Amino acid sequence: MNMAGPLSGIVVVDLTRVLAGPFCTLLLADLGARVIKVEQPGKGDDSRAYGPFINGKSGYFVAQNRGKESIALDLKSAEDVAILHRLLRKADVLVENFRPGTMDRLGLGWRALREHYPRLIYAATSGFGQTGPYAQRPAYDIIAQAMGGIMSLTGHDGGPPTRVGSSIGHLGAGLFTALGIVAALHDRTRTGKSMLIDVAMLDSQIGLLENAIIRYCASGQSPKPVGARHSSIAPFEPYRARNGHIVIACGNDDLFRRLAACLQRPDLAIDPRFSDNARRSDHVLALKETIEEILRPHDVEHWLSVLSDAGIPCAPINDVAHVCADPQVAARNMIVPLEDESLAGIRIAGLPIKMSAYPDRDRRSAAPDLDADRARILADFPDR
Amino acid sequence: MNMAGPLSGIVVVDLTRVLAGPFCTLLLADLGARVIKVEQPGKGDDSRAYGPFINGKSGYFVAQNRGKESIALDLKSAEDVAILHRLLRKADVLVENFRPGTMDRLGLGWRALREHYPRLIYAATSGFGQTGPYAQRPAYDIIAQAMGGIMSLTGHDGGPPTRVGSSIGHLGAGLFTALGIVAALHDRTRTGKSMLIDVAMLDSQIGLLENAIIRYCASGQSPKPVGARHSSIAPFEPYRARNGHIVIACGNDDLFRRLAACLQRPDLAIDPRFSDNARRSDHVLALKETIEEILRPHDVEHWLSVLSDAGIPCAPINDVAHVCADPQVAARNMIVPLEDESLAGIRIAGLPIKMSAYPDRDRRSAAPDLDADRARILADFPDR
Repeated sequence: MNMAGPLSGIVVVDLTRVLAGPFCTLLLADLGARVIKVEQPGKGDDSRAYGPFINGKSGYFVAQNRGKESIALDLKSAEDVAILHRLLRKADVLVENFRPGTMDRLGLGWRALREHYPRLIYAATSGFGQTGPYAQRPAYDIIAQAMGGIMSLTGHDGGPPTRVGSSIGHLGAGLFTALGIVAALHDRTRTGKSMLIDVAMLDSQIGLLENAIIRYCASGQSPKPVGARHSSIAPFEPYRARNGHIVIACGNDDLFRRLAACLQRPDLAIDPRFSDNARRSDHVLALKETIEEILRPHDVEHWLSVLSDAGIPCAPINDVAHVCADPQVAARNMIVPLEDESLAGIRIAGLPIKMSAYPDRDRRSAAPDLDADRARILADFPDR
Repeated sequence: MNMAGPLSGIVVVDLTRVLAGPFCTLLLADLGARVIKVEQPGKGDDSRAYGPFINGKSGYFVAQNRGKESIALDLKSAEDVAILHRLLRKADVLVENFRPGTMDRLGLGWRALREHYPRLIYAATSGFGQTGPYAQRPAYDIIAQAMGGIMSLTGHDGGPPTRVGSSIGHLGAGLFTALGIVAALHDRTRTGKSMLIDVAMLDSQIGLLENAIIRYCASGQSPKPVGARHSSIAPFEPYRARNGHIVIACGNDDLFRRLAACLQRPDLAIDPRFSDNARRSDHVLALKETIEEILRPHDVEHWLSVLSDAGIPCAPINDVAHVCADPQVAARNMIVPLEDESLAGIRIAGLPIKMSAYPDRDRRSAAPDLDADRARILADFPDR
């Protein structure tokens, strides 16, 4: 079912739902692991009910669960739990993203399972983690983004609150969980021992704050939202041309001289307001006005071509249609078709990790229907 | 120098600068690897010149390079390259984030090194990757964010372009590179072979688009910026109280009934505009007005207490000062002091991966001064 990869031979029992956990196990599947998704009988993963729907299938579910297998098990039924144990006997990893305590109440928590399966890596992803005063609180993506500080840095100063436009609260936690699991697999080879990996959405947001914490510690002031600008480099933001915005970024004075020459305004590089980065940063609004006046007569496409040819870092602000049509994205297999005839024309993201030892796939396996792989899974994981 | 972790015993030769690469090797160091940072003599990593400065040290540099060792080597000097080879003979991983081709020109590219060091994992992080038509283009964080589509989803529809408030273009690539490296270490144990890991900032942004690609494929329309709202759940956004905003998120009708009761307005749950999620989504502006009218008389802190006690998912929009003061963040060791007397009072982010097999540190090692570890490194990696 799955392609070869560095995790070939690894079996992951995946009890996760919706996004943070499924994104983690998607990465493990893309790295070659066999991921067996255990879903609630009848309805399956909650996200099977999330749009967009294409020929009756949830696109949301498909994007996060392609390349996995599905079996429906009721974790409150003794008979089904016995089947889960058949899987766990041969599994390397269990991943769950229930509220802390839920697995313990089912008799399936880390402490219970480690007795039976000393080599099983147990990974738990949750809103606030397995410990601490908020451990039992419910979380959604926007809760983690709001409490973790990234919303305070995103948007325009004085403007309305702004969420990061993809669910970075979930996706960040999924990535850190995957990293923890693979590190634990490496560790197990060396030590023969397993471990619990505990990743919180809130912690993961804090791990992605870049230099904001140290800026606060140094100044005593919370950093403000950045808008679309860099706090200490200019030019480094979107500028309006005739038909839209173009991003121009010059990290040093030499690049700015080349930009000025390329815009046929070499005088800007010796203008006392703009002659070095510190001055440009002090006069960032005047710089923006000046550049936009120059850009105004022509389209974004014209300027992208002129500036790219001169080696000036620049970019369009691509909407998703443009991302999907980009030749670099195509060359890197980053948006590829699904092997699912019922979803002809639907494409999904590839894996951003390219490895010389394994081919990079130019299409990706379908997502499973609920319980679709039951017979094969039961055959592969026989009763004692 | 470093604490025990799943990567204990792994030696990483780190040629990276600024952010994507240093963030990757920071994660490897936090997982227990010995990371030897090879820097340009005289000036070192470019980011040593980035503010904020605290007692003459770059806070920016410290946040990304704590727990590493430093040696200054000129990669254009034969003598220094010979020292680099002494390191590589015992290294497990080399990480670089030069423009593609730079390492080849130095005679240090993947093809050259694999001949000598068949077990060396070679990881390259770059703006656009080692292949494809844009491979040679320069990139900054905002270039990857703009071209990768996340800026088209962030901000308010019709409003100005908006960058994600931390450098997710770099941080995402750093995380994917770390995951690729650890997966390659696991693979090497099994196969005895090494590999090249090639990660692009642009690809990494596409890997973090969540369901945007499939929504575009399903509808033919590029998704719009989300503002601070969820596209299909209501209530799920910030609401204004007397002294600021509070995020409230109710993912199902039962939670909304509890919210209505808690706000002492049980009538809202049977109001024909708000009686189920689909209707609330259709009347999202009326819902916002209604909720804000109820919240107006009291402060955010009052409502957080009332709603939390009732189990309603809610959150303050924390600025960095509030993040740093949060008891859950403290309980999870997510913002901790540095072991650096010259930076008393400065705190930095911990690791969001908590592992039962290794203690979670409540302080973190200092960042190295340029070339500070030269003598020890030369002793540990002797000439043949």
